[in-house]
Amino acid sequence: MERIEKLVIVGVGLVGGSFALALKEAGAVGRVVGVGRGAGNIRRALDLGIIDAAGAADGETLKDADLVLLAVPVGQMRAVMRSIAPLLGARTVVTDAGSTKQDVVELARRELKAALSRFVPGHPIAGTERSGADAAFAGLYRGHRVVLTPLAENEPGALALVRAAWERCGASVSELRPREHDAVLAAVSHLPHVLAYALVDQVARHKNAKQLFSYAAGGFRDFTRIAASHPEMWRDICLANKKALLAEIDRYGGKLERVRRMLERGDARALEGLFSGARDARNRWLKDT
Amino acid sequence: MERIEKLVIVGVGLVGGSFALALKEAGAVGRVVGVGRGAGNIRRALDLGIIDAAGAADGETLKDADLVLLAVPVGQMRAVMRSIAPLLGARTVVTDAGSTKQDVVELARRELKAALSRFVPGHPIAGTERSGADAAFAGLYRGHRVVLTPLAENEPGALALVRAAWERCGASVSELRPREHDAVLAAVSHLPHVLAYALVDQVARHKNAKQLFSYAAGGFRDFTRIAASHPEMWRDICLANKKALLAEIDRYGGKLERVRRMLERGDARALEGLFSGARDARNRWLKDT
Repeated sequence: MERIEKLVIVGVGLVGGSFALALKEAGAVGRVVGVGRGAGNIRRALDLGIIDAAGAADGETLKDADLVLLAVPVGQMRAVMRSIAPLLGARTVVTDAGSTKQDVVELARRELKAALSRFVPGHPIAGTERSGADAAFAGLYRGHRVVLTPLAENEPGALALVRAAWERCGASVSELRPREHDAVLAAVSHLPHVLAYALVDQVARHKNAKQLFSYAAGGFRDFTRIAASHPEMWRDICLANKKALLAEIDRYGGKLERVRRMLERGDARALEGLFSGARDARNRWLKDT
Repeated sequence: MERIEKLVIVGVGLVGGSFALALKEAGAVGRVVGVGRGAGNIRRALDLGIIDAAGAADGETLKDADLVLLAVPVGQMRAVMRSIAPLLGARTVVTDAGSTKQDVVELARRELKAALSRFVPGHPIAGTERSGADAAFAGLYRGHRVVLTPLAENEPGALALVRAAWERCGASVSELRPREHDAVLAAVSHLPHVLAYALVDQVARHKNAKQLFSYAAGGFRDFTRIAASHPEMWRDICLANKKALLAEIDRYGGKLERVRRMLERGDARALEGLFSGARDARNRWLKDT
């Protein structure tokens, strides 16, 4: 990979900040300019050495950028794309880190105009429940997967640059079609988040919620860890991937109803079969990863 | 607490073995005799110094025991109680570590006869997804809660002995009525286990299960950690606490249906409200513990 002389991060939170730190640590980037709505967060990113300068969505910041990472919540993506599109340099490559891809691709087709061939949609599958520049760290992507969903229009050089940048962050990069990406993530990420939020809500609304929480232990803590995730971000993800997520929720509702019936009729064999099958499948998965 | 000269552990797995190790570490126990079905596991418990001798459910083992801990799966409790009842010494105190309490109390009333006044039902709320003597460690109960559900018939000395033993393990002991215990645990432990098993089963039965698992990340791993729990044990717990668990599953089904409708009608405000309410409730809980 050629060195990225100028990297612009729009949204210097956990995701954008960690990308900058990882590339800096790898010696793969020259100057990093951060763009963001929160002045306090941008100042913090400067103090922490995540970015070298604070910029704005203007020509000065964007015209000579080699790579722009859009690391804003999915709900802000349209406005950001619209504002940067006319300002991008003729060779500037753009990528994003949105957790859903069909909607981002659709927005890009509408908003990015001439820059579309240099927009490579991406999704780093890594994160913690923390957010903001303070949460960023260079190792976030090490050993994690990044999915790219390239467009038919993409210039090969743009795809190669984005792929190489993520690889320099220590990630393992693969490619999926946008629809395929969204279906996979609905099943293994978006549905679990909804289930965890729903469980905590259920306990919190119990008439004896305080007592219930006082007996919740490590299993509950781990099960609900993802319910500490950013509510605005997850609202946007759910809405952006509504169709695939609804399908997974329906599938899960049916599954739960079947487990309920096993329990109601006291079917010990069926319950144990489901539990041990699940345990074995999970163990195989952990062994393979 | 008087020192426990002779402790008998029926079922020397994670729970029973850790109780023995914790009391040994605290210098609160003399001789520990282990009783169990699996010869290999008992040998391992001897090798690891968890127990000092292997015994059987017979008079020699039981007649001079100060305390007997029944740490067998709920499904084996009846047979164990029936076999030990006529052999217990006149001053032997018995407790259990079953995850459900109404069923254990009912069994004890039927099976323990003369020893009932010295049977103090208990449930240590601690565990890992591992099982067997190899998983046992002295610190398992440190800082964790143990619930006792004493019987009206209990001799005060028996309750005091069991409470003191758990406190010597580093646990914080509280008392609930059996029905109350089962309702609380259904909400914060049994339901999450069912939900985690059901999610792994759903992913594992997808037509592209292999691909799905390959994109599952840390959130999925933590959410499903409890699906690595012992299937036979959890089958027994679910069946033993069927009524309370069915009520929680129904409540959850209703909750999920409401979330589904928020999503279907694109109600961003309601989704964000539920997500942020859940996050805040969880954060308050973690701050309080």
